[in-house]
Amino acid sequence: MSTAERMLQAHPTGSSGPDLAECISACYECAQACTSCADACLGEQNVGELIRCIRLNQDCFDICVSTGNVLSRRTEPNAELIHTQLQACVVACRACAAECEGHAHHMEHCRICAEACRRCEAACTQLADTTAR
Amino acid sequence: MSTAERMLQAHPTGSSGPDLAECISACYECAQACTSCADACLGEQNVGELIRCIRLNQDCFDICVSTGNVLSRRTEPNAELIHTQLQACVVACRACAAECEGHAHHMEHCRICAEACRRCEAACTQLADTTAR
Amino acid sequence: MSTAERMLQAHPTGSSGPDLAECISACYECAQACTSCADACLGEQNVGELIRCIRLNQDCFDICVSTGNVLSRRTEPNAELIHTQLQACVVACRACAAECEGHAHHMEHCRICAEACRRCEAACTQLADTTAR
Amino acid sequence: MSTAERMLQAHPTGSSGPDLAECISACYECAQACTSCADACLGEQNVGELIRCIRLNQDCFDICVSTGNVLSRRTEPNAELIHTQLQACVVACRACAAECEGHAHHMEHCRICAEACRRCEAACTQLADTTAR
Repeated sequence: MSTAERMLQAHPTGSSGPDLAECISACYECAQACTSCADACLGEQNVGELIRCIRLNQDCFDICVSTGNVLSRRTEPNAELIHTQLQACVVACRACAAECEGHAHHMEHCRICAEACRRCEAACTQLADTTAR
Repeated sequence: MSTAERMLQAHPTGSSGPDLAECISACYECAQACTSCADACLGEQNVGELIRCIRLNQDCFDICVSTGNVLSRRTEPNAELIHTQLQACVVACRACAAECEGHAHHMEHCRICAEACRRCEAACTQLADTTAR
Repeated sequence: MSTAERMLQAHPTGSSGPDLAECISACYECAQACTSCADACLGEQNVGELIRCIRLNQDCFDICVSTGNVLSRRTEPNAELIHTQLQACVVACRACAAECEGHAHHMEHCRICAEACRRCEAACTQLADTTAR
Repeated sequence: MSTAERMLQAHPTGSSGPDLAECISACYECAQACTSCADACLGEQNVGELIRCIRLNQDCFDICVSTGNVLSRRTEPNAELIHTQLQACVVACRACAAECEGHAHHMEHCRICAEACRRCEAACTQLADTTAR
């Protein structure tokens, strides 16, 4: 069981289900992968061809950490805020994944980062579907 | 002229208009006000009545910094990502402002924070309207 | 193998050793635990006794994410910056752990958070020892 | 009077002096300038010569936002944590300023960013000197 899941179970508001823990973990994992991929791209010889990738990695990092934080907070939640933030995260992850996938065949860091983005996109999409707008 | 505006003018992609600079400044100003308001609420005797305010301050901080960063980046922008992020920021600022306004008559920090949230909400709303979806 | 470790191995600068991957993972895990613990404390009946804990959780979150990001970047590293940041992270994790440990016997979220802080403190201490000042 | 200064005056712990407000504002201004400079560098034709600058901009952003947050919080402060964080911020700002100054003569965004870094370095140095270790 992940630390995120243990923390959710220990929260005074009570249990919350595995989907939320999975989504929180996916957000922070994607965030770390994006910081790492942006930096790996910066270190590549052909950095000039990776500008869009670096930029989307940075946006995706920012939005994934925010989403992970918003979801980690269970006290006095605001359903509309959570729903809109999940949508922003889905869009950011999808854009970053699509860009990374275009480089995945010759850059392993883009391949791994695209995986993390797709996992986060799927988790946020699923959670948004079960969240009242 | 603010540092944000000077940085935009110095960007290799060229000039961008005062609305963008205003929105970026409003995002970071709101973020700082939210960190400060959450902490001021924590220091109040009646902290038990300010839980929702602290929580929304924290969410609003996260989303405002992300939005300020996304907007500060002008290289290879993704219109859909920017638009969705602006919408998330509008929702977060509106929710935080509404909560702070409920405490504004007896807590000056909530009054100032509500002002910063409304300024950011307005700037993001205006920018979202002029951004292709 | 964690995503952080896979990303490090895929970085163009080459391999980096398991200590770095462990430290990066510990930083983000601690950051998430701190966001979660601050919010769990906010939801407790005796929130008035947990003000210092919430405040240190917030500081520790900020510093752990920054440290995780700085360490994730391997292109053109600045040894002095990394060393000083690791020291700041050690101090933040130690302070937050000590506070959480004081509540650990009757609040599970503080117990788990203290564990994450101590793991991060240890990983940063070890890495700082092997990093030239 | 800046929003940061007004928020400090409205804090329940009472007045705090202009140095703190100046340092908080300098931290967030430097953070924004760093995000903007990293992106402007990414958009330059000679991006390959700006890798170190982009990397330091990113580190400096992370550390400046963390420092701005830590300083904005006045409830239950931890003097050692604040002092160590200020030192980390001084080191990050100095490194980023030195790099940006090397490009300042032909890139206006680096010139403005270096100014913001030096202002933040000076404010953090001064505040660290007046803070008990």
